[in-house]
Amino acid sequence: MLKTPGQSLTEQLSQRLAGRIRDRLLPAGARLPSVRETARTQGVNPSTVVAAYDQLLAWGLVEAQPRKGYFVREFEQKSLSSLNLIGLSAHEIGVSSGAPLAPVARPPVNATALIRGMFHPISDKPQPGMGLFPADWMANSFLPAALRKVAASAAVQDASLNYGEPMGDMGLRQGLSQRLRGLSIDAPASQILTTVGATHALDVVSRTLLSPGDAVMVEEPGWAVEFARLDALGMRILPVPRGPQGPDLDVMARYCTHSPTGQAPKLLVSVSVLHNPTGYSLSPSHAHRLLQLAHLHHFHVVEDDTYGHLAPPHATRLCALDGLQRTLYVSGFAKLLAPSWRVGYLTAPADLVERLVDTKLLGTLTTPSLLEKALALCIEQGQLRRHAERMRTRLDAARSRSVKLALAAGCRFVAEPVGLFGWVDAGVDTELLAQRMLDQGYLLAPGALFHAGRTPSTLMRINFATTQDAVFWGVFQTLRDQLRR
Amino acid sequence: MLKTPGQSLTEQLSQRLAGRIRDRLLPAGARLPSVRETARTQGVNPSTVVAAYDQLLAWGLVEAQPRKGYFVREFEQKSLSSLNLIGLSAHEIGVSSGAPLAPVARPPVNATALIRGMFHPISDKPQPGMGLFPADWMANSFLPAALRKVAASAAVQDASLNYGEPMGDMGLRQGLSQRLRGLSIDAPASQILTTVGATHALDVVSRTLLSPGDAVMVEEPGWAVEFARLDALGMRILPVPRGPQGPDLDVMARYCTHSPTGQAPKLLVSVSVLHNPTGYSLSPSHAHRLLQLAHLHHFHVVEDDTYGHLAPPHATRLCALDGLQRTLYVSGFAKLLAPSWRVGYLTAPADLVERLVDTKLLGTLTTPSLLEKALALCIEQGQLRRHAERMRTRLDAARSRSVKLALAAGCRFVAEPVGLFGWVDAGVDTELLAQRMLDQGYLLAPGALFHAGRTPSTLMRINFATTQDAVFWGVFQTLRDQLRR
Repeated sequence: MLKTPGQSLTEQLSQRLAGRIRDRLLPAGARLPSVRETARTQGVNPSTVVAAYDQLLAWGLVEAQPRKGYFVREFEQKSLSSLNLIGLSAHEIGVSSGAPLAPVARPPVNATALIRGMFHPISDKPQPGMGLFPADWMANSFLPAALRKVAASAAVQDASLNYGEPMGDMGLRQGLSQRLRGLSIDAPASQILTTVGATHALDVVSRTLLSPGDAVMVEEPGWAVEFARLDALGMRILPVPRGPQGPDLDVMARYCTHSPTGQAPKLLVSVSVLHNPTGYSLSPSHAHRLLQLAHLHHFHVVEDDTYGHLAPPHATRLCALDGLQRTLYVSGFAKLLAPSWRVGYLTAPADLVERLVDTKLLGTLTTPSLLEKALALCIEQGQLRRHAERMRTRLDAARSRSVKLALAAGCRFVAEPVGLFGWVDAGVDTELLAQRMLDQGYLLAPGALFHAGRTPSTLMRINFATTQDAVFWGVFQTLRDQLRR
Repeated sequence: MLKTPGQSLTEQLSQRLAGRIRDRLLPAGARLPSVRETARTQGVNPSTVVAAYDQLLAWGLVEAQPRKGYFVREFEQKSLSSLNLIGLSAHEIGVSSGAPLAPVARPPVNATALIRGMFHPISDKPQPGMGLFPADWMANSFLPAALRKVAASAAVQDASLNYGEPMGDMGLRQGLSQRLRGLSIDAPASQILTTVGATHALDVVSRTLLSPGDAVMVEEPGWAVEFARLDALGMRILPVPRGPQGPDLDVMARYCTHSPTGQAPKLLVSVSVLHNPTGYSLSPSHAHRLLQLAHLHHFHVVEDDTYGHLAPPHATRLCALDGLQRTLYVSGFAKLLAPSWRVGYLTAPADLVERLVDTKLLGTLTTPSLLEKALALCIEQGQLRRHAERMRTRLDAARSRSVKLALAAGCRFVAEPVGLFGWVDAGVDTELLAQRMLDQGYLLAPGALFHAGRTPSTLMRINFATTQDAVFWGVFQTLRDQLRR
């Protein structure tokens, strides 16, 4: 540990540990490593560690148990801590499908570790658990140029002094309509609604189509934020195993006819193309049967196409097949070039548009039209498309390096490596491994985070763009082997 | 009606009427004016009106009833149409306070007319029902300049390529902390969270502190969007009459001890200073007693200070008295200079901050830091403060003109005219009057919109900045007198 000027090593260490506790990277009940171990991993004197642990005690963040050590204290956290899952085993609902459903008993789920890790870089090392491309991959000059152009034009007043269009900037919606046509999705601008990123789009959809207590099917494994949001809104989550072809249709049919909540599910949330974390993409025949099921049982499907920009040409989209009858499309620009601009959008059946606009109005009124106008310029001038092409090429090269390193380190790919993420088996409990890796400055994305029930798992998600570092894989092997002993 | 090139008068008229029906300015069940009347008010041939009405019939928007006329058809609208109000009369809960509570039976509430009116200007005439200052009042050169400065600096990359701080841009939060100190509110940056406008701040607070089914006290009259949002989230609204000193404490005490929902309310939503629509500001002694009640009955208070920039110096804020123990503060910049930037913020007790950040993350991840950085510059350089001073001076002059015109037109001020809004008695049902005024190109804000139960009312809210137009008052008097007959 390097000393920061003006701060003692004790202060630095206690604050670092306090931050991890607050961010739930050290969860309640976890034992702090021994003084000797921490002294070794942090490269400081044992007396520094003792003083830092004392400070944590004084802050009330840990408690000492005689002869056992220091343990992180429980403290209240509502929204992300208790998912109201409908936890039924595959057996209980008579499903013979391969993938298991969430178990009944499970520890409180806490998605904050990974989510907060996205915002507070652990170190300046490449982060295999990250959900984004590295900043230097996304960096470009056309986006700031477009912003300067908008800021210098008369449009800056129009796009500041009134609330703007409730549906979002018309120029951007027209550009998106054009882009969607390239994916065989026929969506006029009047059926496109801009949002504060794709996350907000999914939020608007849930709040419009569901009422508290409603059942909603979500793919598992899946993205922790989606589980946590639906739970916080009071929805009941029905996990659907995600396979290479798509979400498990037998399980879905069973939910529709024998719902464990006594109420048929109203919505399916699916990342159909380059699914997070598996990388699976929906097959055409599976898509067709899925839509038949949706029509038969009157549920809507929201297709989260966050990774669409990275998809191979002609990937199957549910919205393209369905013609936006019972399907809604969601995407954004965070994965490609401007995470912090928070521009996303959704596309919906004509008869739902008005209700979706109302939900948007109630939650945020409008969205910042200045940023939407600048993005519209980039789309119009083809810069976004060319940028996406460059990213795909660069990602392909990074992926082949990462895959070699992962295999050499003894990892097994559970799914074919495509897109941004790899879904790998590390052979040990990846949540334990993640705790150890953190001390070395690496954030992992353990498999448990992608399960509604946070089932312990030997799987983990790696980001191909940030996992090409041989040093990381060296540390990984050492710590993994320690856990195996 | 002037003919638009490339569109027949029939098309124009039918589309205009269809828009009004969709925007609920013509509510379901409403009778369209007679062909003769419409021909007169629109300045077109009766045959044009007949053709336009036929078109509305073909679109399924209206139905014809023999010998009675054309009526707007019912069509589904979920989120804004059915408030789950706890409708109890003052008598039922044993309250002897002057102002009545919401009645049990009431028509479906629909706030969209006014809300949508804010976004789709009815005409280019000044709009007395608007909630904003006219664009030319807010126009300034410093905001675009600040944006260009940020866009030209290295910060543009930082503020684009990663998600940014979950709590919001640190520079802006520090500037806000400073500003709040001027209001005697001691809020460090670590207790300030930026949001997508004040609307989103209120949304984040409700979603964090309340679960579906919870009871929440809201001032009445109050802002329609607040009622509609809480309803859409599944909360149970307890309306609290707002008087000149503050929300009615007897009614609140009664709700806490004899809650009609069987569950004590968890939150009070209050616009304490320059209340919308009355303009009332909280008295210090009332504030003190209100906080005693909150501590006694363990409810939180969210203080919406949207109009704070326009308030007289030393106005009493609940958060200042309470020291952010049980109070949260919400405000933004939409009323002053940049409605479409959607930058707002909230300030909260330290023990709630983490949960509020989680709610923000689940709904939108972060907020656009570029715009926050530009606003921070404007605050830092004192431009915002000087702009607010100029706006107050200009508003004072506009208000004195508007008050004279309103009084001359026979209106009575129900509350002392201060701030942006006047709360006036027009002597006739203002919802009916609003329908008539619309045909003349004027949007009114009828009193019913400010009541959770949409009680018919002779009151209306006027915007002092947009109601100085003698022509408007002439039209107003003519139509009002027609309704009196």
